[in-house]
Amino acid sequence: MERLLIANRGEIAVRVIRAARELGLQTVLAASEPDADSYAASLADTVHVVGPAPAAKSYLDGAAMLAAAEASGCDAIHPGYGFLSENARFARFVLDAGITWVGPSPEAIELMGNKSRARQAAQDAGVPTLPGSDGALDPDVDPLPLAREIGYPLVVKASAGGGGRGIRLVTEEGDLVQTLDVARAEAQAAFGDPAVYLEQFVSHARHVEVQILGDGERVIHLGDRDCSLQRRQQKIIEEAPAPSLPDAVRDTIRASSIELGRQCGYAGLGTVEFLYDPAREQAAFIEMNTRLQVEHPVTEMVTGVDLIREQLLVASTGRLRLHQEDIAFRGHAFEFRINAEDPSQGFMPSPGTLSRVDWPGGPGVRIDSGVVLGSAVAPFYDSLLAKLVVWDETRTEAIRRSARALAEVQIDGVKTTLPLLSTVLHRPEVRDVTHHSKFIESTPGLLGDDA
Amino acid sequence: MERLLIANRGEIAVRVIRAARELGLQTVLAASEPDADSYAASLADTVHVVGPAPAAKSYLDGAAMLAAAEASGCDAIHPGYGFLSENARFARFVLDAGITWVGPSPEAIELMGNKSRARQAAQDAGVPTLPGSDGALDPDVDPLPLAREIGYPLVVKASAGGGGRGIRLVTEEGDLVQTLDVARAEAQAAFGDPAVYLEQFVSHARHVEVQILGDGERVIHLGDRDCSLQRRQQKIIEEAPAPSLPDAVRDTIRASSIELGRQCGYAGLGTVEFLYDPAREQAAFIEMNTRLQVEHPVTEMVTGVDLIREQLLVASTGRLRLHQEDIAFRGHAFEFRINAEDPSQGFMPSPGTLSRVDWPGGPGVRIDSGVVLGSAVAPFYDSLLAKLVVWDETRTEAIRRSARALAEVQIDGVKTTLPLLSTVLHRPEVRDVTHHSKFIESTPGLLGDDA
Repeated sequence: MERLLIANRGEIAVRVIRAARELGLQTVLAASEPDADSYAASLADTVHVVGPAPAAKSYLDGAAMLAAAEASGCDAIHPGYGFLSENARFARFVLDAGITWVGPSPEAIELMGNKSRARQAAQDAGVPTLPGSDGALDPDVDPLPLAREIGYPLVVKASAGGGGRGIRLVTEEGDLVQTLDVARAEAQAAFGDPAVYLEQFVSHARHVEVQILGDGERVIHLGDRDCSLQRRQQKIIEEAPAPSLPDAVRDTIRASSIELGRQCGYAGLGTVEFLYDPAREQAAFIEMNTRLQVEHPVTEMVTGVDLIREQLLVASTGRLRLHQEDIAFRGHAFEFRINAEDPSQGFMPSPGTLSRVDWPGGPGVRIDSGVVLGSAVAPFYDSLLAKLVVWDETRTEAIRRSARALAEVQIDGVKTTLPLLSTVLHRPEVRDVTHHSKFIESTPGLLGDDA
Repeated sequence: MERLLIANRGEIAVRVIRAARELGLQTVLAASEPDADSYAASLADTVHVVGPAPAAKSYLDGAAMLAAAEASGCDAIHPGYGFLSENARFARFVLDAGITWVGPSPEAIELMGNKSRARQAAQDAGVPTLPGSDGALDPDVDPLPLAREIGYPLVVKASAGGGGRGIRLVTEEGDLVQTLDVARAEAQAAFGDPAVYLEQFVSHARHVEVQILGDGERVIHLGDRDCSLQRRQQKIIEEAPAPSLPDAVRDTIRASSIELGRQCGYAGLGTVEFLYDPAREQAAFIEMNTRLQVEHPVTEMVTGVDLIREQLLVASTGRLRLHQEDIAFRGHAFEFRINAEDPSQGFMPSPGTLSRVDWPGGPGVRIDSGVVLGSAVAPFYDSLLAKLVVWDETRTEAIRRSARALAEVQIDGVKTTLPLLSTVLHRPEVRDVTHHSKFIESTPGLLGDDA
């Protein structure tokens, strides 16, 4: 591997360029027209413009991306997260062109992309799952007996959904059949696949996940994260390790995530996501993400491992150089996603040009930014400007340091989610780990809509 | 301790404010008039202007500093480095006023401030020293027999000197008496004390040092650093741990530094400096600095310990909460001092207003800056703008990551030493650790004066 195409934008393009440069790779940024002058573009060795602004014509256009790789002489493609990163067809397309795909096999992406098949694979690997249907529901079989066995409330999930999309809650038996019909029609429309499955509903659960890294033969874990602080299914604050998790649960999710990776011959970075029910002290499989996660830096802070460096090395050499005993955990880390959104306008995207960008510094503070003074924040893409990542020896100290660091950020030119991040960080529920994945939306006043 | 006066400026004032805030302390910045609008001032809870620009009328004026502490209701003073930080009289003055002094006892400062007494104390504690005189030379005793025993070349050092000041080289016996006369007169003029002493000269030595932390009873070490990359006795790149040091030497300097600290009942942070002669694989005591060092972040990066937090806690509680077995070392770190100096004008200070300040980010990158977009860089003070600190798992990886990070820095409005830092980092002597403390000045082309 000598020349890497980065098929992404924003902070993750910057992050991948940095990792590639430290390995001595040439970097080619595949940018959309409005991103041709981005901060990522200024850091890449070469910029290749792939198309106009709507992502469908650039970052989601697999043919244009492959053409960019070939035209610029790249021998590898890093898809980042989102966009084409979990598109098995694109991965196959890249491999067929003789180019290294920095990610798992198309088969692994496909398996995990189908949520009912993924659930089955998880069960086969001994990963704890919630009571639910075995694979997709057969539309010709009466769902009521199974639903009664699972119990209400339950959720209907689209097999082709994921990331919180394609989910409907059913609170009583009388609603089940109609909800299944609606859910099937929606799934067909949204994902081109009407299949749905049933799963028990867990309220007041936390979102925990395990980072794995494999080379197709060996798989290791790099610990866990908690990503319960979400707004509209979007994580806004993440931390590592997952706090207040009983040792037995932590051991189970780590070991079974490795086993799931091993059983599907997993190569590269992957994340196994779980719902954790603190009342029952039980974790259950949600889905597996077959790519780099936005929140990977908190894992890097507590392990010292550069995940993208290792991801590139696995892709380039086919071998995982790390062993489980090399992974040592120290301290606690938080990540704060700083989005260009206007809290006073219902968190609408807030485009503009940045006239000031002052980041905090000092010990334990890391910035992964996609912007810099003078950057134009366009309305076309997601609103993530930068991630503030904070490490300290203990969770309590990391909260204090995070408060200090958040207060130092100065961004002028757009509205940001900084006030929400500070408010949430100071909540006693977060300090005491009594929050859950609906905490932000269910807490009056937090989103400023009724303050 | 509730309210801390920071009797300093620039990056170290910012650093102390951050540590204090994370401990929940109120911060009062004692600033000179031109520093009243500095970045440090914007971060402090309160700013107290102590006097006009020349440091003698503000940062070196102990009476004004103490008055500032009293007027602002501070119960503790942090002196930072430089200025009043090694002024035993000021420390006593502070203690007599019933205010906590964040530093060692006035007696320890005084002992180590006298270089011939410090050398004696080091010998008494079993710290290796170079052959030389026992304490200051008696002006009434013929120095020639002792000098012959030490051998030529040798150095004449002012007892009251330090930090590379008050040192003269004598290459042959015929020059000794006259050099002693000149050195005594100079020492009297510069330090108000004519005493001098003799020490063997070591060429091609590296500068290594040990970080210690004590509470008057227990003393621990936090590993070593190498600070050989200097220009005119000013360190410009430092690293931890000291590379290519035989285990026996590392063990000796660490253990004997602890013993020196123990014998003088040392409380707080201190640094024991050594000359390391790679040819003989021997280290010898130079001096002890009884304060925080500029280069403390490289130690923080490899230990995870916030040195200023621990320094404040020792001063506030009188107790060291860390034990030697708590200190674990991981990876390698470099610090780069980014100075506002013009390399094309012999590294003259380069004042101005900063119209762009873009820092690098990503894993293992830390910024300790005293400036921000719009900061005025005044000609009155030392030229340090910021420190770029870079960590990675191995020294080789840390060099690569440092090169990546240095290349990302963008500072407009003043000239900086960034080109020199990059050039030095890429030298094979630095990679192979065959450099020494005169390497930068003795290597043609490095300073651009004959390129």
